[in-house]
Amino acid sequence: MMKSYRLVIDCPDQIGIVSAVSQFLADHQASIVEANHHKDNQENWFFMRNEIEAESFALTLDQFKQEFSPVAEQFKMNWHIVDSSHKPNVILMASRESHCLADLLHRWHSGELDCNIVAVIANHEHLRQMVQWHGIPYHYVPFPKEDKAGAFAQVKELIYEYEANTIVLARFMQIFPDELCKEFAGQVINIHHSFLPSFAGAKPYHQAHKRGVKLIGATCHYVTGDLDAGPIIDQEIMRISHRDSVDDMVRKGRECEKQALARGLRNHIQNRVIINGNKTIVFD
Amino acid sequence: MMKSYRLVIDCPDQIGIVSAVSQFLADHQASIVEANHHKDNQENWFFMRNEIEAESFALTLDQFKQEFSPVAEQFKMNWHIVDSSHKPNVILMASRESHCLADLLHRWHSGELDCNIVAVIANHEHLRQMVQWHGIPYHYVPFPKEDKAGAFAQVKELIYEYEANTIVLARFMQIFPDELCKEFAGQVINIHHSFLPSFAGAKPYHQAHKRGVKLIGATCHYVTGDLDAGPIIDQEIMRISHRDSVDDMVRKGRECEKQALARGLRNHIQNRVIINGNKTIVFD
Amino acid sequence: MMKSYRLVIDCPDQIGIVSAVSQFLADHQASIVEANHHKDNQENWFFMRNEIEAESFALTLDQFKQEFSPVAEQFKMNWHIVDSSHKPNVILMASRESHCLADLLHRWHSGELDCNIVAVIANHEHLRQMVQWHGIPYHYVPFPKEDKAGAFAQVKELIYEYEANTIVLARFMQIFPDELCKEFAGQVINIHHSFLPSFAGAKPYHQAHKRGVKLIGATCHYVTGDLDAGPIIDQEIMRISHRDSVDDMVRKGRECEKQALARGLRNHIQNRVIINGNKTIVFD
Amino acid sequence: MMKSYRLVIDCPDQIGIVSAVSQFLADHQASIVEANHHKDNQENWFFMRNEIEAESFALTLDQFKQEFSPVAEQFKMNWHIVDSSHKPNVILMASRESHCLADLLHRWHSGELDCNIVAVIANHEHLRQMVQWHGIPYHYVPFPKEDKAGAFAQVKELIYEYEANTIVLARFMQIFPDELCKEFAGQVINIHHSFLPSFAGAKPYHQAHKRGVKLIGATCHYVTGDLDAGPIIDQEIMRISHRDSVDDMVRKGRECEKQALARGLRNHIQNRVIINGNKTIVFD
Repeated sequence: MMKSYRLVIDCPDQIGIVSAVSQFLADHQASIVEANHHKDNQENWFFMRNEIEAESFALTLDQFKQEFSPVAEQFKMNWHIVDSSHKPNVILMASRESHCLADLLHRWHSGELDCNIVAVIANHEHLRQMVQWHGIPYHYVPFPKEDKAGAFAQVKELIYEYEANTIVLARFMQIFPDELCKEFAGQVINIHHSFLPSFAGAKPYHQAHKRGVKLIGATCHYVTGDLDAGPIIDQEIMRISHRDSVDDMVRKGRECEKQALARGLRNHIQNRVIINGNKTIVFD
Repeated sequence: MMKSYRLVIDCPDQIGIVSAVSQFLADHQASIVEANHHKDNQENWFFMRNEIEAESFALTLDQFKQEFSPVAEQFKMNWHIVDSSHKPNVILMASRESHCLADLLHRWHSGELDCNIVAVIANHEHLRQMVQWHGIPYHYVPFPKEDKAGAFAQVKELIYEYEANTIVLARFMQIFPDELCKEFAGQVINIHHSFLPSFAGAKPYHQAHKRGVKLIGATCHYVTGDLDAGPIIDQEIMRISHRDSVDDMVRKGRECEKQALARGLRNHIQNRVIINGNKTIVFD
Repeated sequence: MMKSYRLVIDCPDQIGIVSAVSQFLADHQASIVEANHHKDNQENWFFMRNEIEAESFALTLDQFKQEFSPVAEQFKMNWHIVDSSHKPNVILMASRESHCLADLLHRWHSGELDCNIVAVIANHEHLRQMVQWHGIPYHYVPFPKEDKAGAFAQVKELIYEYEANTIVLARFMQIFPDELCKEFAGQVINIHHSFLPSFAGAKPYHQAHKRGVKLIGATCHYVTGDLDAGPIIDQEIMRISHRDSVDDMVRKGRECEKQALARGLRNHIQNRVIINGNKTIVFD
Repeated sequence: MMKSYRLVIDCPDQIGIVSAVSQFLADHQASIVEANHHKDNQENWFFMRNEIEAESFALTLDQFKQEFSPVAEQFKMNWHIVDSSHKPNVILMASRESHCLADLLHRWHSGELDCNIVAVIANHEHLRQMVQWHGIPYHYVPFPKEDKAGAFAQVKELIYEYEANTIVLARFMQIFPDELCKEFAGQVINIHHSFLPSFAGAKPYHQAHKRGVKLIGATCHYVTGDLDAGPIIDQEIMRISHRDSVDDMVRKGRECEKQALARGLRNHIQNRVIINGNKTIVFD
């Protein structure tokens, strides 16, 4: 895969932003692979992602950061630039259910997910073999009722130890504490097994079955202190009928979960997702 | 279209129901066009719909009713048989928005909906011309804040006058009173402009936009006293992104509304929908 | 709706295009509502659409054309700029089937399609009343076997008379002659009742039924001399099963046709579709 | 999972089939879990699948076969009855690509596919480790250009050795010879990486990209001597746009392939698929 730089910007909207950025890029011979813009009219805020062919570019990343600073300051930009060859370090967290974990591991193994899966943390031993077969360290962290804080302290330590910048809750069944949500804001991705905001909370497929809905779904979202209410990255649905038992709904729901999580994570690690309050811009 | 009889049955499940019914039908030379069964394992309840070629059948409907009675009693059946050539009388109710009404009128006009649309009732004058062009009586019933009960009394009278057995709320923006919900239970169909149970209540697209969901939808359901919580007949969804404004969502939502309502109504008037508590069986 | 200018450009790709265009726009105070870029890597060709808030813009369209010329020449651009308040003149053509025509007329009537429907031309009288009710002239042009050329000559005359720049074949069942395809290249939109390239040609639903496919669809495309092989604008599909007869497939297929045609036409009249050889860029 | 018997019948349509079968079942206390009927009106042929709770049933399978014979003969039935606890023996065949194989292995491993995967046969060594980790024998059979017949002879031998009754071509890139197609008719399932009948043959995603379609798909079908033209079991599609490169289409296509193949195989091993000429009945 060609090496590229991804320049991601958001700032108050005004005339001249695109012009200033693209002039800067052209001045340094940047060949632009993909460019995306979005303006939030309600908030009057501007979002931009440029993917630049690295070879074409006359600046190193350090030089870029220095020289681009005045432009960024002029427009009060939040911005960062990422080298696509510096793959993000991802930790997967799981409990007993294997479908999302196995799906992500295979996608990673076959080169579809451009990241380093540096470790799996789980509160059960069930999935150890599958993970280790992929050559990935498996950390069993028990979550006793009386000391969940201690367990999460271990999780936090592991995140630091592995220098992970993305944590994926792949059907991890413990509630992430507020403190960690804040510390790793925008870095923790969850898959919720319902079409949020419907059926938030426990046993969503049972809720859905009881309500008699004709479509079920799954939601990939960033984790915030507000349970199941963080910014949504992606959603997937599947049609069901009266013939579907709760078990059928669970099975079909797993398909939705795998799809929504894999797409959401892929867009996240390619720096295609920008959080905008409690919503997301996804430049896919 | 070939004339058929539709025999719809539900009863406590036990061995021998299908055998008894199909023996009865075979004994009278019934050629079965379509047969559907469903067993609700939780409730131990059985549901069945048989569509019979009328020409093949040796009994008149009256004879059928008489001769089938002992079978029905033996198995404690709720049952009815419908002659497909006796089209149901449908009243459409609307307010200002035309998309669902126009969609249903055109489907009816082109022969896709096998019913008599006997009248349109609306609490605005906006849609009169469109309705009358189709040769359908248009009743303007104002709904003043201080006398909604009086307005609904007029609606009720019209329902009786037209001998309507199905009432479709095609974006009719007044809340059906509990008393009418009970009187016409299982006969009033609403289209709700959200993917229920998400965003029940007012302005669902604004709610959806604010929540940042990635899919919007619409729900066709029977009206009960419990607002937006009646048995769901059909649902439809459409993918959206950060690029979609509330207006775009309204526009895309209208597509979902038209689809879900037309499919739901079509199945209802073909006696394919059976209410099962707060859920539906849809033999489509 | 806010008045806007739509600047649509395609040219050989090179560094500096976006910079030059956005600098030019910023220099004239253009507030950009929406910007889209695409680079065809195989052809090394660049495509761009900018939607500009008209009020913000310091130039008239004539001034724009003059002052932008040097930029356009430098980059060898194909380009045009469109005033959104100059609605395109659209002629709809039909035969007997009403569903696509009725659908487009209602969308136009309710303000969803931002164009002038200046006339309907049909080779049958069936749909006259429906069209005239909308206040649109209806031209019946018979297509006798022995003089189709003469009929198409009348069609061409009507296109000129109405100064139409978009012709929509809304289930018009005559084959557009090569000469007209060339004369109105990129202006004639057809809805084909199959998921092209499957089942090109006649009776696609019968073909699909015979082949036993599990999904059917429709294709909205530009008309070229090569029947059913022009650039695809949009496609829609629907799931079917062994239970669906050819009639059911026709009915479900009509839904696909309405959806694909309405979306395709909407994108076309908003200048969101750019033809790229035998493919399209659709900036939706 | 509850043990059940699946009685699958097809025969010329006539009055009394359902009655005779259900009477027979009721006479032997069969509690019916699920019943499906279908009548092909064009061929005047009847299809039926009954799933019977084994515990409720008063007959052994052998007794059933004997006692049901007169009924079957009377109606000229093709029929078989399957004990759900006798899981089918499945051989998976693959080449280099892992996505379908990994997907099926994980579904099987997690209990979603109710079969014995008795072996994997591949014409490459790439996937050995992944397969063996699941505890499944891996047979590398090379397919030299000059002796494909010899290679297929080995395949045939392995099928017999493992007493396999279902062979899944999970992206196996060799053309199954006519002789084997006939010998294992209705037992060999392929996943074709396009929405058949579009883009049959080689490199379908390249064909699709070139044609500029807006949806891509995959097709799960039975293998017959007529390449890519056997009875379709399931199809899946995904929306694409001008932004999608061939690589993106391949990636999205793999999702379609996994979904269509897993659903198709699941329905096949639950005896829910009946071949009807070149079409299928799928009682899902």
